[in-house]
Amino acid sequence: MSQKIIFDTDPGIDDAMALLFAHAHDNVDMVAITTVYGNGVIEDCTRNACYINDTFNMGATVVQGAAGPLTRDPVGPTVVVHGEHGLGTVEVPLDYPINIDPRPAHEYMCDLARENPGEITLVAVGPLTNLALALQHDPEIVNNVKEVVIMGAAFGEGGHRGNVSPVAEANIHDDPHAADQVFCADWPVTIVGLDVTHQTFFTGDYLDELRRSAGEVGEFIWQVSRFYLKFYSEKVGVDGCHVHDPSAVAYVADPSLFGVRKGPVRVVTEGPAIGMTIQKSDERFYHHDEWSCFRSQQVCVEVDNQRLLQMYKDSINSLA
Amino acid sequence: MSQKIIFDTDPGIDDAMALLFAHAHDNVDMVAITTVYGNGVIEDCTRNACYINDTFNMGATVVQGAAGPLTRDPVGPTVVVHGEHGLGTVEVPLDYPINIDPRPAHEYMCDLARENPGEITLVAVGPLTNLALALQHDPEIVNNVKEVVIMGAAFGEGGHRGNVSPVAEANIHDDPHAADQVFCADWPVTIVGLDVTHQTFFTGDYLDELRRSAGEVGEFIWQVSRFYLKFYSEKVGVDGCHVHDPSAVAYVADPSLFGVRKGPVRVVTEGPAIGMTIQKSDERFYHHDEWSCFRSQQVCVEVDNQRLLQMYKDSINSLA
Ligand SMILES: [Ca+2]
Ligand SMILES: [Ca+2]
Repeated sequence: MSQKIIFDTDPGIDDAMALLFAHAHDNVDMVAITTVYGNGVIEDCTRNACYINDTFNMGATVVQGAAGPLTRDPVGPTVVVHGEHGLGTVEVPLDYPINIDPRPAHEYMCDLARENPGEITLVAVGPLTNLALALQHDPEIVNNVKEVVIMGAAFGEGGHRGNVSPVAEANIHDDPHAADQVFCADWPVTIVGLDVTHQTFFTGDYLDELRRSAGEVGEFIWQVSRFYLKFYSEKVGVDGCHVHDPSAVAYVADPSLFGVRKGPVRVVTEGPAIGMTIQKSDERFYHHDEWSCFRSQQVCVEVDNQRLLQMYKDSINSLA
Repeated sequence: MSQKIIFDTDPGIDDAMALLFAHAHDNVDMVAITTVYGNGVIEDCTRNACYINDTFNMGATVVQGAAGPLTRDPVGPTVVVHGEHGLGTVEVPLDYPINIDPRPAHEYMCDLARENPGEITLVAVGPLTNLALALQHDPEIVNNVKEVVIMGAAFGEGGHRGNVSPVAEANIHDDPHAADQVFCADWPVTIVGLDVTHQTFFTGDYLDELRRSAGEVGEFIWQVSRFYLKFYSEKVGVDGCHVHDPSAVAYVADPSLFGVRKGPVRVVTEGPAIGMTIQKSDERFYHHDEWSCFRSQQVCVEVDNQRLLQMYKDSINSLA
């Protein structure tokens, strides 16, 4: 059974890798791509989404979302990781035709969920601004969507904490207020964060092999990843990259790849720890606990890396 | 060479275990015991300190310190862990004679450090209010003390986070503002937190054996620990207790028991994560970093549990 998803994204290099994965996998039916600022400014992210959707005949509706965070001062695009316009050295013409639904992304999400109650999974791999705006626009969305799957956050499992600050992951750090609203809302959220994405890795060889085996799609993934791998090589000292955004798609396609811990989740919205996420395990009791009034959510703490890598490869090759 | 220390404490059951350890160990010369609210109200903590100092002929100067935190609303005594007056079922008469230095603890610390430049180590195993007040009273204390050793905090190593909240350890949670001032001050701080104290454990058998081998002192440690072990048994489901406050003394006596990670440390002082401590490792770089302007401190991340337990036993037995 194929799962209908709205894919909320800030493409972004790993976003591009995830979009192709969502398009390719039989268990996933990507109805719409909603865009959000993050790795690039909103105009770049929307243009990149349209370009990828068109180039690979994905047939998804593209919808533009938020240009900046709810409350905090904007952090700005991560040019050093994703390049000047979000796709590294792959240059989409700046006048590429933008073909989008006229509604803002959060309104589109609310409408589609209301028209298809219980059928839509929201998969969000950028800042969570659109999802928070959707909660404000139509609180009933919590009952209308099936579930919410997030790539973002870091809970310190195995020492995996922040990537943009000592304690904050980029998507949450970009809009901590939105993230706190999304995690505390009464809908089922699964969080695929650095705790598991730092356990998965596309080596340089893996991407080279995909280039040889997967035709145009493999070539595109290889091209788009050059800038990203340069960043990883120079700043992290490794040949390859972690599997961030595609891991959220992997969860939708096959949740059995992951082990989860259940408990309410909060986000620190100010001070030096801004953007840090915290889960109180349902297994523990504390004297002082400002979490327990919130719904228990799922944080992924384990992943079967080999099986995930095989699934990604098989899916992408099926497009060749 | 014996290390002169001022032992800042809120006795407290594990504080009592630590006081006897500091008194017993040849490498430690406990010049003074300064008291602070925490496990009990300040009157209980001071009375308990006087009682232990007198009963075991420790010969330390006892000095009374702060009755509550700098800024936050008081959390209140941890009666459920340490009993109504701080020493479990060991009842010190409420009219026990209090023989103390007339100065407040923070003033005494500043004076003694100034009179003995470079010779005094501050060992603090309660809320850090006295140390923060000392920094305010005489900023030169950062140059006058040799170093500062703290029992408190939790940095998520091996999943060891909070004990009173999902992210906060009790001593830091009791006065997060004071802790942030102490960690950010320009003096060398070593933090012995839950990351290592949750790797050490006094079993029920271990304490029984100490009772048989260590005379009056062993008997007192056994008696004072009954209430504590009842809490551990009922709430944590284990027979025995973690070695919290004595671990700070162990660090002073033999730092080679511990492995450390270096980097500046901050404390979250408001919001749901209040009392959480965060270290930025000196090994890592982040785009957003409000830590790097502060001095690098030491967080203990590893401990040789067997050697620590042997050292504690040998020291206590030497008093018999
Ligand atoms: Ca993304
Ligand atoms: Ca204590």
